[in-house]
Amino acid sequence: MNEIPMNDVARELLKDVADIDGKPEGVAFNIREDSQCAGRNSTDNIQIVSKEDGSGIDIIVQPGTKNDKVFIPALVTCSGVHDLVYNDFYIGEDADVTIVAGCGVSTDGCDGSEHNGIHRFFLKPGSKVLYIEKHIGVGEGTGKRVINPETYIEQEAGSYMEMNTTQIKGVDSTKRKSAAKLGEGAKLVIKEKLMTHGDQYAETAFEVDMDGAGSSCTLSSRSVARDRSRQLFLSKINGNNQCAGHSECDAIIMDEGVVSAIPEITANDLEAELIHEAAIGKIAGDQIIKLRTLGLTEHEAEQHIIEGFLK
Amino acid sequence: MNEIPMNDVARELLKDVADIDGKPEGVAFNIREDSQCAGRNSTDNIQIVSKEDGSGIDIIVQPGTKNDKVFIPALVTCSGVHDLVYNDFYIGEDADVTIVAGCGVSTDGCDGSEHNGIHRFFLKPGSKVLYIEKHIGVGEGTGKRVINPETYIEQEAGSYMEMNTTQIKGVDSTKRKSAAKLGEGAKLVIKEKLMTHGDQYAETAFEVDMDGAGSSCTLSSRSVARDRSRQLFLSKINGNNQCAGHSECDAIIMDEGVVSAIPEITANDLEAELIHEAAIGKIAGDQIIKLRTLGLTEHEAEQHIIEGFLK
Repeated sequence: MNEIPMNDVARELLKDVADIDGKPEGVAFNIREDSQCAGRNSTDNIQIVSKEDGSGIDIIVQPGTKNDKVFIPALVTCSGVHDLVYNDFYIGEDADVTIVAGCGVSTDGCDGSEHNGIHRFFLKPGSKVLYIEKHIGVGEGTGKRVINPETYIEQEAGSYMEMNTTQIKGVDSTKRKSAAKLGEGAKLVIKEKLMTHGDQYAETAFEVDMDGAGSSCTLSSRSVARDRSRQLFLSKINGNNQCAGHSECDAIIMDEGVVSAIPEITANDLEAELIHEAAIGKIAGDQIIKLRTLGLTEHEAEQHIIEGFLK
Repeated sequence: MNEIPMNDVARELLKDVADIDGKPEGVAFNIREDSQCAGRNSTDNIQIVSKEDGSGIDIIVQPGTKNDKVFIPALVTCSGVHDLVYNDFYIGEDADVTIVAGCGVSTDGCDGSEHNGIHRFFLKPGSKVLYIEKHIGVGEGTGKRVINPETYIEQEAGSYMEMNTTQIKGVDSTKRKSAAKLGEGAKLVIKEKLMTHGDQYAETAFEVDMDGAGSSCTLSSRSVARDRSRQLFLSKINGNNQCAGHSECDAIIMDEGVVSAIPEITANDLEAELIHEAAIGKIAGDQIIKLRTLGLTEHEAEQHIIEGFLK
């Protein structure tokens, strides 16, 4: 495996998406930069190996691993890059791991750049994963910054996965697809935060099959659509056994932003309990008035409310 | 117009769907029996006239009509009938009227019977309509009883429409389609109650465009799916102006009943406020236990809870 040196744009993106300054020390990581490898480290607990066909990496977390962490950020630092990667995560029995997997795209020319990451998770019985994914786009270029993440999750008995995704700025187009199959007693929590600006478009599609007895899922999405941006939220929860599913989508619209929410819940089993809630609206006028009486301008009041909403 | 005499099955159905014993007196009505007319009366305020092509009737409510009522039940009393009727309601300015429009299908043979009623409502400014529609299927025949109602509503400024629909038993298959366009300050309330048994299938699709400033809609559906019956609830609310929309769907599943809810809310305007809620589950165990301690059997307790839920 050949490692390329990390450039300055990559270093900046890395701070934004993974909260780390250069290559982390003492932990497992793989830094992908413009479709190449800019650094990798395996540990006793977590091995990272290239797939034989070169399409991506396998991340193998050993059974019984406790409180460990792995970083796998992907960075696109120039225009005209079309990146596609397949990463598979194998989480051993009773392992407990945090995976930090941000993606940053920077364009400075008129060509667009794109990162498409396809992540699959296989959780063995009793394992626990916290998956954190932050997406940002930066740069002055007119080229479109596109990020299309796909996530497939298979959870065996008693496993727990929490997926926290954040896309706050600069991504012109994103289509997120997440699908999960939950075994007996498996629990999935997805928390999404999204803000779109300008003419951006963002689409999120969840599909969860609760196949095992005692399985549960909670999908929550909080989003803000500013300017002329558009968002589409799709979620599909199928209760195929004794299980509990909850989906909620709260969206704030500003300017000429447009938001659609299409959630779908289907109870295929008498013991399935499914709930969905969605609310779309602008910031309540009385909230702004209250903050203005405290001395904030209207703009500051809006900022304050949005930050609180997406925190 | 030739009137046919009403048969005994029709009289029974009429009681069930419209709460009247034979032809009502002193009010406007039109009783449709097996695709023919079994009675009609117009009044000064409300005229009922056949469409020239024979496809149905026009119901014309004069402007300023107050607290008046019109009955337009449709009855299918035997097997092998495939009824299709187009009824248009023209509601004059500031009129206030209650429309009772139930439909009953009785089959005693092995052929199915079907009633498809297509109702259009045109509400002039300031008018007010309470529309009550009860659907039932009866009879010992193995032929399928099918009712597919379609409703199109156009509401002008400041008009109000409430639509209460109930389908409690005996209808083997139903596809209900309701669409509405709301003008300035127009308000629409739809309340649906549904119970399915055996191998029945019921589908409900709402689509509401809130085009006028200050318009609002509330769609609520309460349903129970017993045995192997299946239900699909679709609702689509588009907020195209300053408006408020609320959709809620509560479903109880029993036995092997299956329920899907797919609501869709889209805010195309900054001043649109849209909320959706859906919940699907079985009767809570503690509710049944509580009623059993009061001396009810499990079956009685279930009946009691369902009656309360659909009341």
